[in-house]
Amino acid sequence: MEILMQALPGFRDFFPADCARRNYITGTWRRVAQTFGFQEYDGPTLEAMELYRKKNSGGEILGQLFSFTDKGEREVALRPEMTPTLARLLIAKVRDFRKPIKWFSIAPFFRYEKQQSGRLREFLQLNCDLVGDASLGADAEMIALLIETMRAFGLTAEDIVVRVSDRRAWTDFLTSEGVIEVAAVREVLAIIDKLERESRESLEIKLAVFGLKLATIEDFIASAQPDFFTALKTNLEARGLGDFCELDLRIVRGLAYYTGTVFEVFDRRKERRALAGGGRFDRLLFDLSDGKTDLSAIGFGIGDVVLGDLLESIPTTKALMDASIAQQLACDIFIVIADESRRPEALGVIGLLRAQGRRVNYSLSADKVARQFKDANASGAMIAVVIGEEWPLVKIKDLKSRTESTWDQAALADWSANLQTPAP
Amino acid sequence: MEILMQALPGFRDFFPADCARRNYITGTWRRVAQTFGFQEYDGPTLEAMELYRKKNSGGEILGQLFSFTDKGEREVALRPEMTPTLARLLIAKVRDFRKPIKWFSIAPFFRYEKQQSGRLREFLQLNCDLVGDASLGADAEMIALLIETMRAFGLTAEDIVVRVSDRRAWTDFLTSEGVIEVAAVREVLAIIDKLERESRESLEIKLAVFGLKLATIEDFIASAQPDFFTALKTNLEARGLGDFCELDLRIVRGLAYYTGTVFEVFDRRKERRALAGGGRFDRLLFDLSDGKTDLSAIGFGIGDVVLGDLLESIPTTKALMDASIAQQLACDIFIVIADESRRPEALGVIGLLRAQGRRVNYSLSADKVARQFKDANASGAMIAVVIGEEWPLVKIKDLKSRTESTWDQAALADWSANLQTPAP
Repeated sequence: MEILMQALPGFRDFFPADCARRNYITGTWRRVAQTFGFQEYDGPTLEAMELYRKKNSGGEILGQLFSFTDKGEREVALRPEMTPTLARLLIAKVRDFRKPIKWFSIAPFFRYEKQQSGRLREFLQLNCDLVGDASLGADAEMIALLIETMRAFGLTAEDIVVRVSDRRAWTDFLTSEGVIEVAAVREVLAIIDKLERESRESLEIKLAVFGLKLATIEDFIASAQPDFFTALKTNLEARGLGDFCELDLRIVRGLAYYTGTVFEVFDRRKERRALAGGGRFDRLLFDLSDGKTDLSAIGFGIGDVVLGDLLESIPTTKALMDASIAQQLACDIFIVIADESRRPEALGVIGLLRAQGRRVNYSLSADKVARQFKDANASGAMIAVVIGEEWPLVKIKDLKSRTESTWDQAALADWSANLQTPAP
Repeated sequence: MEILMQALPGFRDFFPADCARRNYITGTWRRVAQTFGFQEYDGPTLEAMELYRKKNSGGEILGQLFSFTDKGEREVALRPEMTPTLARLLIAKVRDFRKPIKWFSIAPFFRYEKQQSGRLREFLQLNCDLVGDASLGADAEMIALLIETMRAFGLTAEDIVVRVSDRRAWTDFLTSEGVIEVAAVREVLAIIDKLERESRESLEIKLAVFGLKLATIEDFIASAQPDFFTALKTNLEARGLGDFCELDLRIVRGLAYYTGTVFEVFDRRKERRALAGGGRFDRLLFDLSDGKTDLSAIGFGIGDVVLGDLLESIPTTKALMDASIAQQLACDIFIVIADESRRPEALGVIGLLRAQGRRVNYSLSADKVARQFKDANASGAMIAVVIGEEWPLVKIKDLKSRTESTWDQAALADWSANLQTPAP
């Protein structure tokens, strides 16, 4: 019995309030991505293992796969990230779409991770990718989209920061320091990626293998001023988003496939893991398609777990989220059937209001009027419509102001037609 | 490489047009369920195997599971249906919610089925359940919700029919025929479930085991007039939905746990599998909770595959779907930057329009005006806003009527604020 009572460790149940919270996050993601002209796509939850082996992004993902052999003897895995699926779709049909391709997806992902704060084994992610445009304008558009997605939750430049960096600046610097071989550059970047999490002693030892000193690295990080960042900042300032964005060369991203601009979003207090991350991967499609598809690309992913925790922790963003949850859980109108013989007429009115998009509740069988009003108050409805001896007129009770009035049905239909139910 | 190019058999890629089609279906499901006052919930994609063994619904589902042992040595399965998860949630927290509980979910499910028409290995399902109300009013509300969900796609009583039946009528009839033992009743109902698919000879042989003749069964189906159906029909007629609903005692549903009213939706031409099905399961929560939770329940599920095929096959419903897809793939406004030195001002205008919820596209780097207009026409936008020498005024080109006018920015903001983008 015990096992029936709970979800697997790292997996979530979404009771209605949890689901409304989830839909607030995913609905906001979808809305903002659409305003940037991005189109939604998706892939299957299960993919062939081969897709992840082939990409081999150099992270820890392969070791965290939920993978198994299916009844048809195929090696399969629950998707741990979107980029391999996106690459598969693009390589299959890239010629069918005008460039730049601007796509987003909102989907669950699966990783067998150790249980720890901010990590779950099933989580949601918004993935946005812009393909076929290598310009700095494309970089700026993606970072603006990322910032606007955060702003839509009420987050300000005092709450979060986008730390922007550039792999090309690192490659140039490392070349000047004599680290030239691709594999060596990758290994050094993997060390830089841990700069904020490892001891100076350990870093010094690892860097020494490549003839580098920690002080040289720190000098570069403190003093380098890549041109691309000035242009990027100007673009973002024109949008009023300059305050959200800082150059920070400590950001290099763990995955091997990034080629240029990379960025991560953090809470300003640095109390949490990265909220989001992404960058340019201008070689990945070429490599995965054995040279058949050569398109530049830049993308990012935002997970729902750290973001949700952050929104809970700031009073203003929590208030916005809670208001959306309350709105989603409420209904608009409660129909009180005061004269049971009028149930057929009541069902007619209910059908008309629902056809207008209103969320309508009522008692499914004969019930005392007092009890129906109790349910009406608990339902979160704005008004109760009483159907009884006044028919064909109806009595309207405003459930907030407690005022009553008598309307004809045309007035009710008009009121209902003009009611705007906000989106989640 | 081959394997990289396609999804696993029975799984789907959703390119933007496919995803818009999917969102048209799921968005319509969500909207209608909400108008009936249903609240959305969800559970994890992966569940403990034990959950499905325990319920053992008597169908073929256990043999079709995508199941495996995870890295923590747990036996787990991709969810093949929602009811076990729903039961788990209800049993855990049923006291936290006012009755009746009206919940819906929209989620992917997984079954390792033979490749055949109308069946996929990953598919979407709307599940609606009403818990804690055993009244006929609850049955009618659920069947009305099912019908309104279908009507929202433009389907009429000439396209589909809800075939309603009652397991109690069958139990009463079988008792009068001497079939009394629960296991025997179940076995006979499993034979009835195949009535339309098996040969008369085979049915006759199977029924004889229980001392029954096919003719007796057929007489019962043709002549029985259960009272509940008359009351149900009256309720649906008050909503203008009477034509959608027929008594048909051949419907008994394959799953063992149904206890009363059962129903399935079919296309009138009987060219397809059932579009949806459901029924009352007043004992399941009691049995699964070892007697701790005793609540009546009625629910149904609608899959997206057969429904999508049907909508494609009827010109009127296909037109509605295609209009939604086109609307979703379009943007609202295309900004043409005719004077590149005005790009910062253009970025400001773009940000304001997007903040109003408008879907805005523009060229990410300097481009010829003619080329920008070409992109504007391809984008599906209603208007192009030209930012150039007229600044701070802007030139507006209506991309349908090809007419031009010059607006100030307040007029543009007003127009944009009043634009209603329809929901998918």
